[in-house]
Amino acid sequence: MSFDTVTTVLFDTYGTVVDWRSSIAAEGKKLAEEKGIEGVDWEAFANAWRAGYHPAMDQVRKGQRPWTTNDTLQRQRLDEIAREFGISGLTQAEKDDFNRAWHRLGPWPDSVPGLNRMKAKYTIGTLSNGSYFLLANMAKLAGLPWDCIISADNFHHYKPDAEVYLGAVELFGGDASRVMLVAAHNDDLRHARSHGMKTAFVARPTEYGPDQEKDLEAEEDWDIIAGDIEGVADRLGA
Amino acid sequence: MSFDTVTTVLFDTYGTVVDWRSSIAAEGKKLAEEKGIEGVDWEAFANAWRAGYHPAMDQVRKGQRPWTTNDTLQRQRLDEIAREFGISGLTQAEKDDFNRAWHRLGPWPDSVPGLNRMKAKYTIGTLSNGSYFLLANMAKLAGLPWDCIISADNFHHYKPDAEVYLGAVELFGGDASRVMLVAAHNDDLRHARSHGMKTAFVARPTEYGPDQEKDLEAEEDWDIIAGDIEGVADRLGA
Repeated sequence: MSFDTVTTVLFDTYGTVVDWRSSIAAEGKKLAEEKGIEGVDWEAFANAWRAGYHPAMDQVRKGQRPWTTNDTLQRQRLDEIAREFGISGLTQAEKDDFNRAWHRLGPWPDSVPGLNRMKAKYTIGTLSNGSYFLLANMAKLAGLPWDCIISADNFHHYKPDAEVYLGAVELFGGDASRVMLVAAHNDDLRHARSHGMKTAFVARPTEYGPDQEKDLEAEEDWDIIAGDIEGVADRLGA
Repeated sequence: MSFDTVTTVLFDTYGTVVDWRSSIAAEGKKLAEEKGIEGVDWEAFANAWRAGYHPAMDQVRKGQRPWTTNDTLQRQRLDEIAREFGISGLTQAEKDDFNRAWHRLGPWPDSVPGLNRMKAKYTIGTLSNGSYFLLANMAKLAGLPWDCIISADNFHHYKPDAEVYLGAVELFGGDASRVMLVAAHNDDLRHARSHGMKTAFVARPTEYGPDQEKDLEAEEDWDIIAGDIEGVADRLGA
């Protein structure tokens, strides 16, 4: 397949570009050491925090609550899981800072080199449910060389609402075949393809840990299927 | 004044970062040579094209026409001024390409070095009435190292509508004092300041040519007043 028409490559971020699980667990362990918190399985904690992500966004998507940015959703979820995991004694400021751990997620090893290669040939950016502020801070801290940031915040809609995919395409002139989405999640790519976008799958079989059950491999004939972001760059001739 | 609170520096683009007048005139002269068009004052043509910019946006701002991106407004204006300047014989494709000259505007000499300095310390981006697509293409061609692009397209409102300034602040977490606008236009800065943003003026006294009458100097005590973007970087300690 030729990708001559593609001018813009957008990326899902959580899981696709950054390793949220290891990063959150590492920040949890550091906080536990500072505060003398014992007996918490921080990898399980990270997964539990993340597990609240889709239900909270779904409430917004279904109109059960007004537009709420993910910084706020994740902060509310933190209060819930801190209780579930029996963590007490954190001040509001400490919890606010821990919530900002989502702004400090670290990249997979292939992300920065792969993105730098693609940046030389394409406009590269995010297409993420993360807050705009989070994505901007993450880019600086993780060295992600985006040309632009596109967030659910820009549309007041979360993926997989059509408004996000179509809104991004509109920003780049309206021709969906010129815009590719890179994601580690088959569902995200299904929606992108349904709106005419090009699709690239990268395998992240340990995003959720060693027992991950979903998205272990490509489930459709995506335009590109690669082991990582450098593999996508290879296929794009970048 | 200390700028310790500032984390994000946004830039007006036309006139502030890029020299639209010289760029458009140069593209006009090249086209004239290729097509044998004679007797056109291309600097005057550039100014006439630009002069249609605010009236067209004002129609959108007043609700006299639905949201229309600047690529379309500028393309419509081109048909008008081609007639005014007695230019005929251009195909639709040639006029479409000439309209894309606005995507290919060149930077002032201080813009790229100044932005690269600021990028090391701040999140830098556009806050422009230019279309998102235009701003993305311009960045690649001119080497403008934006971390993010914010366009009127993101809000379906043109500056100086409050939605643009407040919308940008919201994307960066809602604290206006953390966001600075850099512009060569006093009016733009007045609106930014009225919404709580920090302000930096750069002098571009020949933006409209040797007979420019407006914005020759700062008209208020902006937080920074500088001769160019490197001067803003100096003041920000970048």
